[in-house]
Amino acid sequence: MAGLQVCSVLVTGANRGIGLGLVRHFLEMLNPPGWVFAACRDPKGQRAQVRLGWDAVVSDPSSIKAAAARVGEHLGDSGLNLLINNAGIVKLNSLDTETLEDMTQVYTTNTVGPLLLGQAFLPLLKKAAQGSQGSVLSCSKAAIINMSSHGGSITSSFGWDQLQVISYRCSKAALNMLTKCQSLGYRQHGVLCVALHPGWVQTDMGPPVTVDASVGGMLKVLSSLSEKDTGTFLDWEGKVVPW
Amino acid sequence: MAGLQVCSVLVTGANRGIGLGLVRHFLEMLNPPGWVFAACRDPKGQRAQVRLGWDAVVSDPSSIKAAAARVGEHLGDSGLNLLINNAGIVKLNSLDTETLEDMTQVYTTNTVGPLLLGQAFLPLLKKAAQGSQGSVLSCSKAAIINMSSHGGSITSSFGWDQLQVISYRCSKAALNMLTKCQSLGYRQHGVLCVALHPGWVQTDMGPPVTVDASVGGMLKVLSSLSEKDTGTFLDWEGKVVPW
Ligand SMILES: NC(=O)c1ccc[n+]([C@@H]2O[C@H](COP(=O)([O-])OP(=O)(O)OC[C@H]3O[C@@H](n4cnc5c(N)ncnc54)[C@H](OP(=O)(O)O)[C@@H]3O)[C@@H](O)[C@H]2O)c1
Ligand SMILES: NC(=O)c1ccc[n+]([C@@H]2O[C@H](COP(=O)([O-])OP(=O)(O)OC[C@H]3O[C@@H](n4cnc5c(N)ncnc54)[C@H](OP(=O)(O)O)[C@@H]3O)[C@@H](O)[C@H]2O)c1
Repeated sequence: MAGLQVCSVLVTGANRGIGLGLVRHFLEMLNPPGWVFAACRDPKGQRAQVRLGWDAVVSDPSSIKAAAARVGEHLGDSGLNLLINNAGIVKLNSLDTETLEDMTQVYTTNTVGPLLLGQAFLPLLKKAAQGSQGSVLSCSKAAIINMSSHGGSITSSFGWDQLQVISYRCSKAALNMLTKCQSLGYRQHGVLCVALHPGWVQTDMGPPVTVDASVGGMLKVLSSLSEKDTGTFLDWEGKVVPW
Repeated sequence: MAGLQVCSVLVTGANRGIGLGLVRHFLEMLNPPGWVFAACRDPKGQRAQVRLGWDAVVSDPSSIKAAAARVGEHLGDSGLNLLINNAGIVKLNSLDTETLEDMTQVYTTNTVGPLLLGQAFLPLLKKAAQGSQGSVLSCSKAAIINMSSHGGSITSSFGWDQLQVISYRCSKAALNMLTKCQSLGYRQHGVLCVALHPGWVQTDMGPPVTVDASVGGMLKVLSSLSEKDTGTFLDWEGKVVPW
């Protein structure tokens, strides 16, 4: 299997954690993408570990539209191959302590953000799809990858005894539904859409897979995606996660 | 199988549609519940077809808390057997036209509402569970029924070609996740939790099952629920709907 070969990729939440790991891996590839857009909420902020940031607050529609316009200017006619909706938040609430405010904030970032990013970048993804050879869906052609979580699997209710995190679980289940909807709606435009569980990764969110192993695994999975995978929910090793 | 026998039930969104149908069927039972609380957003409003309303705006935390307090006063020591989270809204948006505002409003009503109602009425549900015979979960003991939708099934993406309704689908997928979480969290308190698809019912939301047939079917399903059903997703005929 050939490694992932994309001309352009945009990663949200790219200043730290898995997003930063993705950007690093892309830049270190033998055949790196011509464009790696590392979108950050606050490119010059305290928590930014990388300085090549692009303003993009995924919970703010106008910020997303502005980012899409600027990315479009840079890319010109070639379009964007790969949009990775990675930015996400978690609030450590239980069933008893969950609130309207946290439910709303987590949903806005984790679910509505990826919807709005998909809408804003669709013209660029379409352009990339039209400009690429062949009709088979792939990440080298045009794709949206939504960073989901095993915690969003209704079937497995993974890790319930440790973390109830209702707002997080509900937002990721809804993100999985969004991914399914995007796969149905964007297939006609040649855009592959997949929900991805990165493993339980050593970031501010939790243990035991390393960011490096997770990102390496996910990029391998991305390179193998085709027609049959659009609208599915996979983990960093390529295994199907039940809805 | 004996019909559904509950001492007290509260239905949200009870002024019209399926909610009103549920209240009517409860009142017409041979053995009607001693208490039927018909909770409405606007008990005296234009759209109210029933005048025995209880103020309860499911998208407003303080209104929910106030309703729980007043219901508690009426019930005294006996607690509430059955909470039916029926109130819901739909916005006819497509993937292209969906907005942050509608995503938020639909989620608040369809997903956060049932969470907050569960929290507010938990003490009354616990009381009912403690006061009832036997340890097997059932609707006659204590239960939360969340009115979901086949449209919230990620697996089947039912009716996609007719209605994309992203905000609605995401909210119902998230409601299914909430139901699973409630079933895990509230089992220890003796509360059964189920997500229910009412069929496609002739209300302001759509055709072809009649409200009467749907409500009759659902009440039969409710009467049959036990231990094995908590945390599941069923339709009005008792068939399992895939997540
Ligand atoms: N780590 C795990 O084990 C794990 C497991 C399952 C799924 N995931 C998912 O993987 C993704 C990345 O997780 P992570 O572990 O790398 O998390 P992290 O280390 O906490 O990083 C989260 C990133 O999202 C950004 N972000 C948050 N809200 C934002 C907003 N409104 N606009 C723009 N950016 C925003 C953060 O930016 P700031 O620095 O500005 O806050 C940060 O860059 C998330 O979607 C998470 O749910 C992680
Ligand atoms: N009809 C179907 O075919 C179908 C299919 C699948 C699922 N469902 C689900 O079944 C449930 C009932 O549907 P329906 O067809 O009876 O709908 P409907 O006829 O449109 O009635 C909706 C009810 O919800 C109430 N409501 C809306 N927002 C509220 C809020 N913030 N606070 C309190 N009450 C609120 C409405 O009150 P107002 O009168 O004040 O607006 C009304 O009583 C919904 O959850 C729906 O998603 C219906």
